[in-house]
Amino acid sequence: MKRKIAIQGIRGSFHHQVAREYFSGDIEVLECLSFDKLVDSLLDTSSDGAVMAIENSIAGSIIPNYALIDNNNLHIIGEHYINIHHNLMALPGQTIAGIREVYSHPMALLQCKKFFRQYPHIKLVEDADTAETARRIREHGITGIGAIASKTAAELFDMEILAGNIQTIQDNSTRFVIVQTQNSVLPEEEVNKASIKFKTQHKRGSLATVLNVMSDCRLNLTKIQSLPVIETPWKYSFFVDVTFEKYDDFKKVKSLLGIMTDDFKILGEYKNAKS
Amino acid sequence: MKRKIAIQGIRGSFHHQVAREYFSGDIEVLECLSFDKLVDSLLDTSSDGAVMAIENSIAGSIIPNYALIDNNNLHIIGEHYINIHHNLMALPGQTIAGIREVYSHPMALLQCKKFFRQYPHIKLVEDADTAETARRIREHGITGIGAIASKTAAELFDMEILAGNIQTIQDNSTRFVIVQTQNSVLPEEEVNKASIKFKTQHKRGSLATVLNVMSDCRLNLTKIQSLPVIETPWKYSFFVDVTFEKYDDFKKVKSLLGIMTDDFKILGEYKNAKS
Repeated sequence: MKRKIAIQGIRGSFHHQVAREYFSGDIEVLECLSFDKLVDSLLDTSSDGAVMAIENSIAGSIIPNYALIDNNNLHIIGEHYINIHHNLMALPGQTIAGIREVYSHPMALLQCKKFFRQYPHIKLVEDADTAETARRIREHGITGIGAIASKTAAELFDMEILAGNIQTIQDNSTRFVIVQTQNSVLPEEEVNKASIKFKTQHKRGSLATVLNVMSDCRLNLTKIQSLPVIETPWKYSFFVDVTFEKYDDFKKVKSLLGIMTDDFKILGEYKNAKS
Repeated sequence: MKRKIAIQGIRGSFHHQVAREYFSGDIEVLECLSFDKLVDSLLDTSSDGAVMAIENSIAGSIIPNYALIDNNNLHIIGEHYINIHHNLMALPGQTIAGIREVYSHPMALLQCKKFFRQYPHIKLVEDADTAETARRIREHGITGIGAIASKTAAELFDMEILAGNIQTIQDNSTRFVIVQTQNSVLPEEEVNKASIKFKTQHKRGSLATVLNVMSDCRLNLTKIQSLPVIETPWKYSFFVDVTFEKYDDFKKVKSLLGIMTDDFKILGEYKNAKS
C-alpha cells in the first residue's frame, strides 16, 4: 500500500520535491494549502505522514510550525535539506517590464526582496503557495502577473522563466521535517539527532546549567530558541536540537533533564541528515 | 520641533498606539506599509525614530525584524509592551454570515485562527496591515468583506464590530522596540536591559560557557535565539536579551564576551519596560 504524504502546497512545490527525495519509494501525495490543513490531514488520518518546512538558512525558524508540532503532539521522524532556487516566471512571450504584480509565498517574497528592488513598478503580493500561483496563471491565461517558483513548477505549468535564481542569498538551504501522529522508533544505533522542548525554573543560570549537562554528556547543540509560554506571557520554553554520536549519551541527558526541567518533552529522535 | 516617528501600518494600527504611548509628547507619524519601508525611512532620514514589533507572546520572535535591525546597524533605544485585542469588523448593517472574506495582517490572522474555525465559509486573506484594510473597506464601501483590527481603527473608519476580542489567547502581549540610526546613550543608572548578538566558536559547550559567564555576572537571560549565519548555512549567531541591576555587571560581561565570542555586537542598551 502506498503511503499517503501530505505536503504544503501543490505538486511542483518545494515540499513536493522533499517528499519525492525523502520517500524514495512510491507515495501518494496529498496537497494542502496551509500548514494547518496539513496537520488536520494527519489528525483525521487522511494522510499518514507529512512534510513540513521548519527552518531556513536565511529567515531562521518557522516558529508557528514548532507550535503546530508541539500542540498537536506530532512526532518528528526524520529531516531533509534542500537548496531553494527561486525563479521569476510568467506566461510565455512577456518581459519583466510588462509584469505589474508578482504573487508568491511570503517566505519566497522575503528571499527575493533584493532582486525586486530594481523593479519598483512590480507590486509584490503574498499568496498561499509558490507553485500554485504558477498553476493559476496558466489555468486562467493571466498576463501581466508573475509567480516565483521552482523550475519544476515552470516545466509542469509551461511557464517562461524571466529571471532565474533570483534569491538574494545564493546558498539558500531549507530544513524540512517529516512528521507523523505515531512515533516510528528507529533502532538506537541509527538515531543521532533529537528535537526536545523544556521549561526551566525561573531563576538565574538555569538554562546555563541545562546546557552544561548537555555538553558534559557530549551532546552538540545545533539550534536553540526560547519561545513564550502560551497563557503566561514572558515565561519561556526552549526548543533545542542536539546531535550526538552515542545514543547512550542522549539517554543520560533525557533522564537528567526529566528531573532538572519542567515539562520535558521529546519532539523526535531521528537520523541527522547532515552527517 | 516635533520628532518624526515611523510606524508599520497606518494611523489606528497597533504600532500607532505604541508610538503614542511611548512618546508622550507630540510626534509626527510617518505611515509605512512594510518593515522594509520603515527602515528605509530611517536610513534616508525621512523619519528620526521608528516603532517595530519584535516579539509576540504567542507567535514568538518576528525573526526578519532582528535581521533588519542587525543588517542596517540600527540601535534599539527602548521597548514597549501592549496587549493586543483583535476585533472582526465590517461596514455597518451586516452579519458574520454575510462576510465571505476577511483580510488582515498575517500575524493577526494567525492569532485569531481558532475563532474562524466556526465560520468555514469565510476565506482568510493576508494583507499588509490591520487598520489599513478597515480604511480601504470604508473608502470603497465594500460589503461582504471584513477586517481584523483594533477598536481604535473601528472608530476611526466608522466600522461595526461584529465580534470583539476574537484572539485565541486572551492575554496577547506584544513587545515593540524603538529604533534609530544613531544611538542615544542613557545615563548608566537608567540602563537595566540590553540586546546583544554574538557568534560562538563551533565547538561543544561554547554557548554554555558564555551563559555561565552571564550568570556569574548576575545577568538574567530573558530571551535567546540561534539564527543562521547568512552565507554560511547552519552556522549560528545568537540573539540574546539580558536584564541586570547594576550596569557595572553588564560592563564586565561586555569585556568578557568581546574576547570569548566572535562578532560581538550590542544592538541596544535601554530601560526594561517590565521592571
